[in-house]
Amino acid sequence: MPSTNGSIASTSRAPHSRLTTISSHVSSKPSKVVVCRDLGPDVMPILTERKDLEVVLWPEDRACEREWLLKNIKGAAGVLVMITDIVNEEFLETAGPNLRVVSTMSVGYEHVDLKQIAKRGLRLGYTPAVLTDAVADISIMLALMAGRNVNETMAIVREGQWPKFTWSPFAMCGPQISTTAHSPSRTIGFLGFGRISQATLSRAVSFGVTDCIYHSNPSSPPKLERDQAILKQHQPQLKSLRSVDLDTLARESDVVIVLAPGGEKTKHIINEEFLRKMKKHAVLVNAARGTLVDSDALAKALREKWIWGAGLDVIEGEPNISADHPLLKEPRCNIVPHIGSATFETRLGMATLAADNVVGGILGDKMPAELDLSS
Amino acid sequence: MPSTNGSIASTSRAPHSRLTTISSHVSSKPSKVVVCRDLGPDVMPILTERKDLEVVLWPEDRACEREWLLKNIKGAAGVLVMITDIVNEEFLETAGPNLRVVSTMSVGYEHVDLKQIAKRGLRLGYTPAVLTDAVADISIMLALMAGRNVNETMAIVREGQWPKFTWSPFAMCGPQISTTAHSPSRTIGFLGFGRISQATLSRAVSFGVTDCIYHSNPSSPPKLERDQAILKQHQPQLKSLRSVDLDTLARESDVVIVLAPGGEKTKHIINEEFLRKMKKHAVLVNAARGTLVDSDALAKALREKWIWGAGLDVIEGEPNISADHPLLKEPRCNIVPHIGSATFETRLGMATLAADNVVGGILGDKMPAELDLSS
Repeated sequence: MPSTNGSIASTSRAPHSRLTTISSHVSSKPSKVVVCRDLGPDVMPILTERKDLEVVLWPEDRACEREWLLKNIKGAAGVLVMITDIVNEEFLETAGPNLRVVSTMSVGYEHVDLKQIAKRGLRLGYTPAVLTDAVADISIMLALMAGRNVNETMAIVREGQWPKFTWSPFAMCGPQISTTAHSPSRTIGFLGFGRISQATLSRAVSFGVTDCIYHSNPSSPPKLERDQAILKQHQPQLKSLRSVDLDTLARESDVVIVLAPGGEKTKHIINEEFLRKMKKHAVLVNAARGTLVDSDALAKALREKWIWGAGLDVIEGEPNISADHPLLKEPRCNIVPHIGSATFETRLGMATLAADNVVGGILGDKMPAELDLSS
Repeated sequence: MPSTNGSIASTSRAPHSRLTTISSHVSSKPSKVVVCRDLGPDVMPILTERKDLEVVLWPEDRACEREWLLKNIKGAAGVLVMITDIVNEEFLETAGPNLRVVSTMSVGYEHVDLKQIAKRGLRLGYTPAVLTDAVADISIMLALMAGRNVNETMAIVREGQWPKFTWSPFAMCGPQISTTAHSPSRTIGFLGFGRISQATLSRAVSFGVTDCIYHSNPSSPPKLERDQAILKQHQPQLKSLRSVDLDTLARESDVVIVLAPGGEKTKHIINEEFLRKMKKHAVLVNAARGTLVDSDALAKALREKWIWGAGLDVIEGEPNISADHPLLKEPRCNIVPHIGSATFETRLGMATLAADNVVGGILGDKMPAELDLSS
């Protein structure tokens, strides 16, 4: 468990990082790196203890102000940003010709203008893979919560209604995610079938899931060999693994888990049409980006019981979700505030990777996770 | 998904069950079976369609009234009870000498006086095993919820605080149940290591858990062969499986899951002493019986941060848990109202088993799940 209470002292470099060093990679003057958020005492030393770097750190415990950022990135060789920092032409122009690398502490890069990065010959670091397990964990958690009516039943306890609640053989029941003697097969369906979906499938198989279907970018070539290997890994419990069209995904899944990229191409891919095709006892989980699911359609689906329940880590328009949002009126909608990667272990891993990326980019070395801008 | 809306029509037998049949097992008069709760249209026909039974059913959708029960069990050959029906000397005396079997739709039998059952040469049916997977599911769900601060973070969304919430690299973080490159080992600890614990371990291994320890009834002989088989089943992911003392269970577990029987012997076995020894980032799950955990000690442990969080399906004194209960004041305490077995599939399985048990007991045949009263 890393300590998160400490913080480094100033907005600028540690005293020893002012020292001039001789290096084959950088000029004798330390390279400026702007860090848009304190990464904590376990990670900041990766930057502050280097004599070839001059660290300029946004001092507040909140998102970096644009004005401060634009003022400080002038002449920077590297900038370490969060998902809240927009990296556009203005940003890159202001930073100027010394800039070599932008490193974002996120798996997504919707806030970065990739064309501008490529045009200027810059490098972009991001933090994939490290959050795979944390997000797979929360995907399973949300599927279980949606099936077991957690939002509804926790409210019964919280509001002191438990004493009045009448037990009956089927009271508070929901559909079981795991298989039983009475229902020995279960199909999990993924929208998107990358690393996180695969890690989620590994977990789901241990709950007795027997079949997996997925729908991914139709323009990508089929990955038969990969799928064969995944199926083999989970046999004999897993009986089948297939790439399907959206219609089949909706109709056949007992659990639909959305783990695809956001953006215009996937906007509202889970819409009224999709939700109407789902099984009545199926649950929907979104642990990807809010834009993939049409919130109004989902609220309607829950209200009119087209599906059993939902578990959401993300909602379109977040964090501006007020208490009167339509989805908050649905007792079968279980919502957490985008905490998919919010574990100490994972955020520490992301921060470390983001710091290592910016160092590699500034030095002209290998970056542990660099986005391929050629595609 | 079984239908749960229908109900059978009367408090008594279906018309055709009045017919007299000739059977080698029962007298020519149908045997009376009293059923303390409507088991729904998928299960009741197991009883009502038998010509050799006369079914007397409590007609209300709430716990059976004692007065009604005592009046109706006179002369019964079998009684199918719920956990809310106390089966004591008064009950058995009132039923009289025709009684052959009591069948409870529950895995526990704290409500049944076993000595009286044995003394009278009666048989007792119960419903183990069928709820194993449902309870294992909820055990994992509660462990994840406790680690990921679900009670706290759902409240942020529900109360419309999400827009005001400041993102920061470690905000809303909790300990990760699954392993990561930064923390590649995890120990799960079970209090009690029966079927449900073993099913929970199977699931936990898929999250990357590397080590399992358990503490079970010290008077039971060690089960080395069984443990060797379980370890082998989960290798190479699972590195070790050991029976330990309570002290080691508390000190070494990242997740402690309570899945042992209730009763006097285990009352408050999770007390202040145990909780003080636990790791600061560890979580406690109770999916067994409320009496095993001292609620005041747990509230103190959460308040003073001896442990990270808790996930409870049961609380001592339930369902009489009012909104001002000390555990409800702890944001890191995630509580659901004893829904461990509350899935349609499992309750259907339990109801079917309870009905089959009562039939077997009345006919003098094999009962699918009969408690061994000789031990």
